[in-house]
Amino acid sequence: MSCDFIDLANSGIQGLSPYQPGKPIEELERELGLSNVVKLASNENPLGPPQSALDACRAAMNGLHLYPDASGYRLKTSLSAKLGVQPEQLTLGNGSNDVLDLLARVFLDGDSSAVYSQHAFVVYPIAVQAAGARAIVTPAQSWGHDLQAMAEAIDSDTRLVFIANPNNPTGTWLTEQDVRHFLAQVPDNVIVVLDEAYAEYVEEADYPDGVELMADYPNLVVTRTFSKAYGLAGLRVGYAISHPDVADLLNRVRAPFNVNSMALAAAEAALNDSDYLARSLDVNRRGMIQLGEGLSKLGLDVIPSVGNFIAVAMPGRAGPYYQALLEQGVIARPVGVYEMPKHLRITVGLEQENARCLEALSAVLNEPRS
Amino acid sequence: MSCDFIDLANSGIQGLSPYQPGKPIEELERELGLSNVVKLASNENPLGPPQSALDACRAAMNGLHLYPDASGYRLKTSLSAKLGVQPEQLTLGNGSNDVLDLLARVFLDGDSSAVYSQHAFVVYPIAVQAAGARAIVTPAQSWGHDLQAMAEAIDSDTRLVFIANPNNPTGTWLTEQDVRHFLAQVPDNVIVVLDEAYAEYVEEADYPDGVELMADYPNLVVTRTFSKAYGLAGLRVGYAISHPDVADLLNRVRAPFNVNSMALAAAEAALNDSDYLARSLDVNRRGMIQLGEGLSKLGLDVIPSVGNFIAVAMPGRAGPYYQALLEQGVIARPVGVYEMPKHLRITVGLEQENARCLEALSAVLNEPRS
Repeated sequence: MSCDFIDLANSGIQGLSPYQPGKPIEELERELGLSNVVKLASNENPLGPPQSALDACRAAMNGLHLYPDASGYRLKTSLSAKLGVQPEQLTLGNGSNDVLDLLARVFLDGDSSAVYSQHAFVVYPIAVQAAGARAIVTPAQSWGHDLQAMAEAIDSDTRLVFIANPNNPTGTWLTEQDVRHFLAQVPDNVIVVLDEAYAEYVEEADYPDGVELMADYPNLVVTRTFSKAYGLAGLRVGYAISHPDVADLLNRVRAPFNVNSMALAAAEAALNDSDYLARSLDVNRRGMIQLGEGLSKLGLDVIPSVGNFIAVAMPGRAGPYYQALLEQGVIARPVGVYEMPKHLRITVGLEQENARCLEALSAVLNEPRS
Repeated sequence: MSCDFIDLANSGIQGLSPYQPGKPIEELERELGLSNVVKLASNENPLGPPQSALDACRAAMNGLHLYPDASGYRLKTSLSAKLGVQPEQLTLGNGSNDVLDLLARVFLDGDSSAVYSQHAFVVYPIAVQAAGARAIVTPAQSWGHDLQAMAEAIDSDTRLVFIANPNNPTGTWLTEQDVRHFLAQVPDNVIVVLDEAYAEYVEEADYPDGVELMADYPNLVVTRTFSKAYGLAGLRVGYAISHPDVADLLNRVRAPFNVNSMALAAAEAALNDSDYLARSLDVNRRGMIQLGEGLSKLGLDVIPSVGNFIAVAMPGRAGPYYQALLEQGVIARPVGVYEMPKHLRITVGLEQENARCLEALSAVLNEPRS
């Protein structure tokens, strides 16, 4: 074969490295012959999926030979009522990853740029590069977004700004005042994406509700997900709330059946399951205290987090600690790809999972380092 | 608001109309107060989903709080064994629609072109336009692809050619000799996508197996789906088989969790359920004869089809007949968007569904036309 297929691809894609997901439990058990592995690597909900969602899945099963409802009528109706927005403002995604990618596809091309922060969620650089656009990355401030630097970084080619609130993997967050001050500086032809994947966990009084901000800033797009507090990472449902014209554009590019029948049914049930959500937040609140205290006792520095995870600085490069934890049957997440070579991100688990993780860390820290 | 968001979008997207799916049964029942509606509009499998797949879904339920296996390890292993290809040649998609779109995103941009036929599957024009590329549409020959015209239409900007075999909505197909003769004329830096969504239904002796052709033509990409003969349209699983370098590129752009956990589990089970597949083909074979004879008795011309659907020419524009059939509780598919204003596409259903459809058509043809 004389042809190099890689050369035929669009230039943004030639330089693209795919997203690296957390190691699956099955894979580690297969590799190391372990059982009883604890995975605290992917910010998944330790409660398991909501029973209400499983019941909805069972009820939807007999219709799996039929295409999903392309309009997502029932889920959009529920979201619309819950959020106080019009269904025309909603775009459903195969996870919020899909919605972030749709935003890049609609607004970015080889002539435009997007702004995001150092240490910000890795899907932003991937989506920007896949669209062939130029990335403007602003330095972080105390691990969080420096909104002033981001506002100043916007140039005449900028079409999108990505802000994660709170941010993954740092757990840092921005106040309502911070965000309003920023939005007031952004030209109205620049779309600001406020990624609220972890919003449900945040209980700080001055944490903003992105949907409320949209009344003053129609160029704001808020994205959310059912993968975290709603416990449905395996089904892939996220959504964007935006001006109806932006939603119209996103829905033109969206694959018509991007959210499948099971996912639509389960998300609708989970959205109305306030008991499950309350339990998720309660487990997370207690687990975060447990992990924070335990990590502090081990003498490790953490980045204060309002999410369902915490980034902890190891005494040296994180890679060997990650490996040593794997051997103890604990999967954490190295975040070198986020320019955080010494940190591990640990998801808040159930009480016994957090305890297992702290014990494993203690053992690993006491091992002689090669 | 001074800013027109539509103006901010990439030009290809500004001109894009979203895919129009078939009318859902629920929607028609809601609108017309009908029950017992027969939907023969979306080429779905009339047998319902495979029991084996539902069992696999039930077994996967308790893990729905965890992210799907991003690598699709188990499904790819099964596909690889079944097809006699390497796992590195496979790209999983959220339906084959996703894979077709990934191909456009990887290989097309504002400077390139793609070739497809008049009356070909509507996802090709959508994917090409979303990528901002130029479409080269060749006239059909007896409703099918004119491969000679397609080969001659390839120009120096062409990166992709889409061929549906068989084609939807016409049901026309190409022989192995036709396809080989075509491939021999295509430059090796042009990717040829052979869309085999309906391949399982085809029983003609000289119908080619795209995977076998790949040995001689490494620029060939074959796409397939679990939505048709495998009865899982509601779960969205498709895949591409290609040269490993092409798969590498597609997997860079693919969202890492694009196929959800339920879909992965169900597809693996369905793939190994040869009984279900055999029943699907049997029902389709008998239903196609029943519909063909019935339509002929009604004096209607059809396009000979090897799929699980048949395009029938109505005496005048199809729209009013489509509406009249809806009032009879039968959903067919108008195909005006395919430049076939007089045709309705009818999916092959169960015996009693086909009979209902023929009765409704008979009634509608005998109504006075306004």
